[in-house]
Amino acid sequence: MISRRDFARRAATGLVGAAWLAGTGSPLLRADEQPAATSNKLGKMNLSFKPYLLTLRHAFGVASVTRTTTMGVQVEIELDGVVGYGEASMPPYLSESTESVLAFLNRVDLSQFKSPFEMEDILGYVDGICENNAAAKASIDLALHDLVGKLIGQPWWRIWGLDKEKTPTTMYTIGIDEPDVVKEKTKEAASFELLKVKLGRDKKSDREMIESVRAVSDRPIAVDANQGWKDKIYALEMIEWLHEQGIVLVEQPMKKTKIDDIAWITERSPLPVMADESLQRLTDIPKLKGVFSGINIKLMKCTGLREAWKMLNLARALDMKVMVGCMTETSCAISAAAQLSPAVDWADLDGNLLISNDCFDGVKTAPNGKLILSDLPGLGIVKRDKPVNRLDTL
Amino acid sequence: MISRRDFARRAATGLVGAAWLAGTGSPLLRADEQPAATSNKLGKMNLSFKPYLLTLRHAFGVASVTRTTTMGVQVEIELDGVVGYGEASMPPYLSESTESVLAFLNRVDLSQFKSPFEMEDILGYVDGICENNAAAKASIDLALHDLVGKLIGQPWWRIWGLDKEKTPTTMYTIGIDEPDVVKEKTKEAASFELLKVKLGRDKKSDREMIESVRAVSDRPIAVDANQGWKDKIYALEMIEWLHEQGIVLVEQPMKKTKIDDIAWITERSPLPVMADESLQRLTDIPKLKGVFSGINIKLMKCTGLREAWKMLNLARALDMKVMVGCMTETSCAISAAAQLSPAVDWADLDGNLLISNDCFDGVKTAPNGKLILSDLPGLGIVKRDKPVNRLDTL
Repeated sequence: MISRRDFARRAATGLVGAAWLAGTGSPLLRADEQPAATSNKLGKMNLSFKPYLLTLRHAFGVASVTRTTTMGVQVEIELDGVVGYGEASMPPYLSESTESVLAFLNRVDLSQFKSPFEMEDILGYVDGICENNAAAKASIDLALHDLVGKLIGQPWWRIWGLDKEKTPTTMYTIGIDEPDVVKEKTKEAASFELLKVKLGRDKKSDREMIESVRAVSDRPIAVDANQGWKDKIYALEMIEWLHEQGIVLVEQPMKKTKIDDIAWITERSPLPVMADESLQRLTDIPKLKGVFSGINIKLMKCTGLREAWKMLNLARALDMKVMVGCMTETSCAISAAAQLSPAVDWADLDGNLLISNDCFDGVKTAPNGKLILSDLPGLGIVKRDKPVNRLDTL
Repeated sequence: MISRRDFARRAATGLVGAAWLAGTGSPLLRADEQPAATSNKLGKMNLSFKPYLLTLRHAFGVASVTRTTTMGVQVEIELDGVVGYGEASMPPYLSESTESVLAFLNRVDLSQFKSPFEMEDILGYVDGICENNAAAKASIDLALHDLVGKLIGQPWWRIWGLDKEKTPTTMYTIGIDEPDVVKEKTKEAASFELLKVKLGRDKKSDREMIESVRAVSDRPIAVDANQGWKDKIYALEMIEWLHEQGIVLVEQPMKKTKIDDIAWITERSPLPVMADESLQRLTDIPKLKGVFSGINIKLMKCTGLREAWKMLNLARALDMKVMVGCMTETSCAISAAAQLSPAVDWADLDGNLLISNDCFDGVKTAPNGKLILSDLPGLGIVKRDKPVNRLDTL
């Protein structure tokens, strides 16, 4: 159901977008018959943003912390009636907060740029405002990609030359809990083809967690050790045992600083060893070659899609595996990450399935986890009037 | 002047392109109201090609060889009336010939792909047909980029998020010749802000060449040593002398196999040392970090724009300089390379100025060498009815 207001906004978007496109670069005209710099006809970009409290379907446990809500910031960049949507998600174990994101966004002045298409310059400027603040920077990057894709009239998977049929099935995370609860959660997730389990506590808990899942499911599992294993010999033994249990990859077996130990593990591991905490941005990748088998790219850590696409291509040039991950976030950021997914080996994009108030429609998740991209331009998202529990729509 | 036939073709291109676009991803529609896979409505891609003899304005000398013509192959990929143009250029000192390019193109079957937008898969298939044949592969890559850009209605500089105002001035090459001829050629090139001189013979000839240019011009100069210097100590002395002569960079001072010697030179050189012969494709770049200051990307060596864009971003991630170079070719391939140029440090894109039968209009070169990109979609090129001497139009 589309409201009057929403329909009017979308209609405006469509018409303005089309009118704008009609004036640009038609092959009908010779170079000297083209309108002078199309971008001169564009208005100014208007940036707006507001906090958004995400409510979790289940209390979510990682080690000692359990949460029932998490904060996000919703961003819009409007230009001549076309609106691009972005989002920052800030789980409390990273250094950004609602306050820091809002403070950062308050410093961003997009009015100095003559066109949203100058993404290299705009995002270079945003990155240069100050260090860190990756999620705040990503919220601008996402809104800009959504806006530019809408102005071009194409989704980013197509602009990047990918085949949308080649999306992977997303992993679905089974949270740490008591054996009976784990078994129950695993049964609920029976339709998903690839599960994800977080380990890295002690040997007993780790084995118990895997055995609880295996008691009710023989699906392949990705394991995230979250830097938890203290010793390389123990880590390798765990990985060898996990390999026998049908695990398909291991993320971040030891502390990010233990580079030599991780390289030692990766050299001997029967499973791909993926970097998560050891990695934030593009320039971190070259030194991980030979240390890890591959990298986990997360938009909120790497400042957004533009850098993520470069990271993906750099990892490929170094013959490394690639997975794309997420935070707890709405279908805005998940759909952004999903645009990249036809080019990755694994996707861990279940963040929108974990909340009960998703305020966007975007990439769809089939019951088996397969990500389904649409032909909608930009990030492929439409703002909802009424937030939804995404998992109910599977 | 546009012929009837040409006008009809362009009109068809414009109309079909627009009609095609109108059916895709309008923000007016919800995901479930979108036409199912837009690409299903596309026809098949038709590939055609023919040899094209490029005539040189001046006989062109590199060491012992002097040429007055060079062969190229012109490629078209047509889809639903929209035509994308590409080109292979095969200077005789590389391993490809007209015969090898035509033989390669005869093996290419694009009819198996449902959409030209699947560039990652299409170009992966083309690359996998057999090894080498980089120029033949590039001709397909260029035609596909031109086609896809036209279908999207955008030039590639904009799709890549670049600012077309940031193009560099292209270098203009002064060929090796007798001192009086060199002085004459340099005077003719007086308007160009950056000259390029090929050295790498003996000390006397190299100094004579630079002194001949310096006798009539104080413009900055890029030097290409073409692997010519035999000894690292001599090479470094030459570079130090060149630095005093207002030279701004040196390409490939020694043989591509002399990696340790080149790294030694680069560490001590007052000028950036750029890789040309040491480098062909994306995966060659990581091992050049620490050996060279940067890389020279040439479409005909790296299989085209898709890989070139990845190479540029990889070099940047490694904090390396980037220049974009060319062969002797028409404004088709030069305009393709120019799409990247707002993101490079130096451009050496004078290949179209060296011929007297340029069969495309595309990127314009201002008298000072500044590359002027248009808003035309794809590679920004229009096929000419009558070939032109490009330098006459400056």
